[in-house]
Amino acid sequence: MSRTHTIEFKSAGLQVEVPTGLTLTEAANLAGVTINHPCGGQGRCGRCAVKILEGKFRRRSSLRLTSQDIEAGFTLACQSIIEGDMRVSVPPQEKVERRLVTDLTARKVKIPEGYDHQVDQTIKRVNLTIEPPTMEEQTDDWSRIKRALRKAANIEDPQISLPLLQQIGTILREGGWEVSAIVEIPPENSGEAPRLVALYPIHFPDDKPLWGCAIDIGTTTVSVWLTNLITGQVHAQVAEYNQQIQHGEDVISRIIYDSKDHNEGVLQGLVLKSINQLIDRACKRAKAKPDEIFKATVVGNTIMMHLLLNIPASSIRLSPFITTATHIPTLKASELNILIHPEASIQILPCIASYVGADITAGAFSSGIAETEKNTLFMDIGTNGEMVLGSKDWMVTCACSAGPAFEGAGVIDGMRATKGAIEEVWINTENFEPNIRVIGGGKPRGLCGSGLISLLAELFLAGIVDKSGNINTSLDTPRVRTGPHEGEYVVAFADESSHGKDIVITHVDIDNLLRAKAAIFAGYVVLAESVGVPLETVEQVLIGGSFGQYINVEKAIEIGLLPDMPWENFHFLGNTAVMGAYNALLSWKSSQKIDQIAKQMTYIELSADNTFYEAFMSALFLPHTDLSLFPRVAEMKAEK
Amino acid sequence: MSRTHTIEFKSAGLQVEVPTGLTLTEAANLAGVTINHPCGGQGRCGRCAVKILEGKFRRRSSLRLTSQDIEAGFTLACQSIIEGDMRVSVPPQEKVERRLVTDLTARKVKIPEGYDHQVDQTIKRVNLTIEPPTMEEQTDDWSRIKRALRKAANIEDPQISLPLLQQIGTILREGGWEVSAIVEIPPENSGEAPRLVALYPIHFPDDKPLWGCAIDIGTTTVSVWLTNLITGQVHAQVAEYNQQIQHGEDVISRIIYDSKDHNEGVLQGLVLKSINQLIDRACKRAKAKPDEIFKATVVGNTIMMHLLLNIPASSIRLSPFITTATHIPTLKASELNILIHPEASIQILPCIASYVGADITAGAFSSGIAETEKNTLFMDIGTNGEMVLGSKDWMVTCACSAGPAFEGAGVIDGMRATKGAIEEVWINTENFEPNIRVIGGGKPRGLCGSGLISLLAELFLAGIVDKSGNINTSLDTPRVRTGPHEGEYVVAFADESSHGKDIVITHVDIDNLLRAKAAIFAGYVVLAESVGVPLETVEQVLIGGSFGQYINVEKAIEIGLLPDMPWENFHFLGNTAVMGAYNALLSWKSSQKIDQIAKQMTYIELSADNTFYEAFMSALFLPHTDLSLFPRVAEMKAEK
Repeated sequence: MSRTHTIEFKSAGLQVEVPTGLTLTEAANLAGVTINHPCGGQGRCGRCAVKILEGKFRRRSSLRLTSQDIEAGFTLACQSIIEGDMRVSVPPQEKVERRLVTDLTARKVKIPEGYDHQVDQTIKRVNLTIEPPTMEEQTDDWSRIKRALRKAANIEDPQISLPLLQQIGTILREGGWEVSAIVEIPPENSGEAPRLVALYPIHFPDDKPLWGCAIDIGTTTVSVWLTNLITGQVHAQVAEYNQQIQHGEDVISRIIYDSKDHNEGVLQGLVLKSINQLIDRACKRAKAKPDEIFKATVVGNTIMMHLLLNIPASSIRLSPFITTATHIPTLKASELNILIHPEASIQILPCIASYVGADITAGAFSSGIAETEKNTLFMDIGTNGEMVLGSKDWMVTCACSAGPAFEGAGVIDGMRATKGAIEEVWINTENFEPNIRVIGGGKPRGLCGSGLISLLAELFLAGIVDKSGNINTSLDTPRVRTGPHEGEYVVAFADESSHGKDIVITHVDIDNLLRAKAAIFAGYVVLAESVGVPLETVEQVLIGGSFGQYINVEKAIEIGLLPDMPWENFHFLGNTAVMGAYNALLSWKSSQKIDQIAKQMTYIELSADNTFYEAFMSALFLPHTDLSLFPRVAEMKAEK
Repeated sequence: MSRTHTIEFKSAGLQVEVPTGLTLTEAANLAGVTINHPCGGQGRCGRCAVKILEGKFRRRSSLRLTSQDIEAGFTLACQSIIEGDMRVSVPPQEKVERRLVTDLTARKVKIPEGYDHQVDQTIKRVNLTIEPPTMEEQTDDWSRIKRALRKAANIEDPQISLPLLQQIGTILREGGWEVSAIVEIPPENSGEAPRLVALYPIHFPDDKPLWGCAIDIGTTTVSVWLTNLITGQVHAQVAEYNQQIQHGEDVISRIIYDSKDHNEGVLQGLVLKSINQLIDRACKRAKAKPDEIFKATVVGNTIMMHLLLNIPASSIRLSPFITTATHIPTLKASELNILIHPEASIQILPCIASYVGADITAGAFSSGIAETEKNTLFMDIGTNGEMVLGSKDWMVTCACSAGPAFEGAGVIDGMRATKGAIEEVWINTENFEPNIRVIGGGKPRGLCGSGLISLLAELFLAGIVDKSGNINTSLDTPRVRTGPHEGEYVVAFADESSHGKDIVITHVDIDNLLRAKAAIFAGYVVLAESVGVPLETVEQVLIGGSFGQYINVEKAIEIGLLPDMPWENFHFLGNTAVMGAYNALLSWKSSQKIDQIAKQMTYIELSADNTFYEAFMSALFLPHTDLSLFPRVAEMKAEK
């Protein structure tokens, strides 16, 4: 009774005649249309989702698809049995994968709506035409400049530094009493005085850019956004490893290194080197000069801020974990050796506590959690895990030392998310063979964070690893074996890898990953408990930081790292820290709002009692001791 | 009919029997009582003034004595003919000479009446006992200190510098949370915020001194007064040559040196060296440490202030004579390399114009001119001549470049007022022989300012020099001769001098002295004219600066340098500049008053029109073209 049907793959412009009963995957193969099936057509990965424009078919399974997806006409090609003529659209793979594909450094930044430098910006450039002195009118140079500033821009009684005072006489005469002044005018309510930042012996055109930069000092990566303060436009976004990395991957090793006698100032020097090199690179890209940058805002975790300022951080490491200062006074570039204009102000955004830094206050602003009505979980998981739970009315925050496992450290074949890293793994549940995707293509060198999460989830779902993280070495496959670190799974054999060595994940690696994910999950739980708000009532999860950049939400839920809620409730926001710094750079109101956020947030110290420890112990399982917290994972396990 | 009389010299406890008709000088000689007669008993010098307690005598002349002197019983011994028994008291010579004999560096400074450091002083020391942090209370270190400052001393929201922020964590823990804070609290009306200056890991006793220093940078001499800010007591007064002298004696040569390409910063370095050496010396004397000095006030002329700050001063030298700034923002010691506590504030008192500096605003305060009802002339004649005319209601000020002639420079045998300098000269009007007094005794090496003034006056009164300053070479004395520089008078022949060479004053020297004194006199005249206040209505003349320290008022009047008014109207005040700096150091009210004085004073630019030039030309004579301005000098000339 078999009939043939015409299947048209619209986007590819191809079509094929197939008999009833084939899957759409089989039809696509016959038509020469590429659809990814990393799980091997088991209906587990959801990557073969296609949109049915027209036609009759039967669904075997809809795992991985939301009701909205189904309503919108999506189906899994490998699970769809053809019963009539069909017209099918294959969406781009990125969309299907639901992962953050935006490379922040390439994305065009949205200038804050209604940005008006005249109103919002504290740095102004004013062309001044100054009356030359005469024998009858011998007012001193500085008073003359002040008079002109009052007249031209209503600036009252500005301050001036000694180095600038040493130059103004020469500049005035060199410019023939026509000069351009760069002035910083703090908000009226700040109680601070305006300040002459620089003076040039020339009148500049109004559209000449006025530069500022937003700096994010991550434990791993330093980012700089070079911005024209007049238009608000970001002209260059550059990022590079924090050169402190050579003395420790995580903040604790950095503090230990910094506290040693002969190391004083070394880490400060290294991060400054990173910053200055990035500024240089950004300037080259934007055709600017570093000494034309008149303002910088800086964010980063509390330890990064201490090390930047060469403030001893040792008390942060030891109970009761005290910082020297959470609010740092505005500094001048020359005080810090940041090689922009020496008189430029360096505004370090406020931190909350030893392990909740300016990256979080800035992120709480740029993520929008501080303005939303919805119960929101905002998390910034980099080398550390910091999170905020709340809305515009209340916010609690905590930090859990997840460790660098998700950045590929502390794992035998771990590596950073660069070329050669396995970023995704699917395991065939029957023969336990892996299907991998490698960054940049080609043979793999190791596993990055997203690859590890993906691998762990697959090992669990395929039954290779049990809920405690133990590897079932009795399975009949050469991929599972007992190695020097107990049980291990071979992701790539020597002949499959680029360096000719096996790439494995061991029991010890899995333990590390479990600890990391448990710490993060326990963080949410304690936050939610601290305010009596059930985790289920959280309406959205906003993810900032490098962590969110490549991982796959579903895999992260499968291992119990992210809470089990519909995928559409998760939003990857990219580098919310630098975005907050950028907002503060442009607008004094945003800057004050971030100060207010810092005041508003309640910090929950996780090590203050046993609550966190208990939550952590319960989360040391895949996905959790309490499976009811992960209903969809439970369902998936059951289906398998 | 000659009788004998008993003459008792009370103070000496000696008496003598003498016949009628002898002078008291002759009686004193017979009794073995020393009375000085530098004019040789001609009744010209007034130095033999004695007080008659009882007895009958006849006066030949009372030149040099005021009516009050005569009323009080004074008479000139050489001019008093004995007519009966007498009881006579010989006053100490200093009193008779009417010259400033006080060595300022040895004089005990009067602490301002009612000085209360709690009320007047901006620098405070506060012992703090800080609650140690706990896991339940993790406030950062700096917030903890701020909280303690608020509680202990009501100090709200102090500022802190980065270098101090780098230390507080360690200090708090080293001190076991018991610390002592040094805080600067600006006056409420200043709009400035309080500031943490230093923190020590110890509680200090309340009576431990809190050090500050007042610094006066003269063109020639730098003075430092080290002061305990708690009691107001000055513990050390030290002074030394300004080491800039090696590159020019006067401000103009300093500016020229400073403006040359390779000399940038050299003069700043030298004056800082002078200051730092003096601070070191003062600290050793007071058993203090330089880094325990938390505040400094600085005065000096405008050029000295520019050079101290390494601000180019070239525009000051050239018409229209413009300074970079008359009001310098308060700096930190570390910004200036003044080696006291790096966070100490350096307050530079305000200047008025290019040639009227902070020494004058400070002097106007400490001299009292700004508070008096009397029409007052205040002058500070050092290497430059600056003066203020006015009272509490109005003040005008000007500067005349007198040049360094009165400091012994620009004169062939001129020297500074140190050992070996002739400081006083009397010339016998009959044989033209000089009678000299040498600083430190012994043979002379040269002539200092007071010696030059004295010599010029004597040359004029003895008829050796005419009113135009020409030497009458036709006189029958080996002392007058024609030398390589036209006419000259030999004050000491080679065998009378310590270096075996003649000490002379030449026609050229006299010209230089005339120019210097004419510039100063013309200054008064123009000031008085500018406000329509006749010079005769001036009720007192207050003299500050090194100039007044050794000169003799009567001689200065005789050459037309000082206006001809009763001696008792002249008051030597010593270093009014450093005294003003000391007042500003102790009390913010005094400091604000000095700011107000700077605003209140009207600066008269002498080179703006011909008025000064005309007054100067008229004053290029001895004592002046218009003798009616010097009635007593006219009288003296007539008597001769």
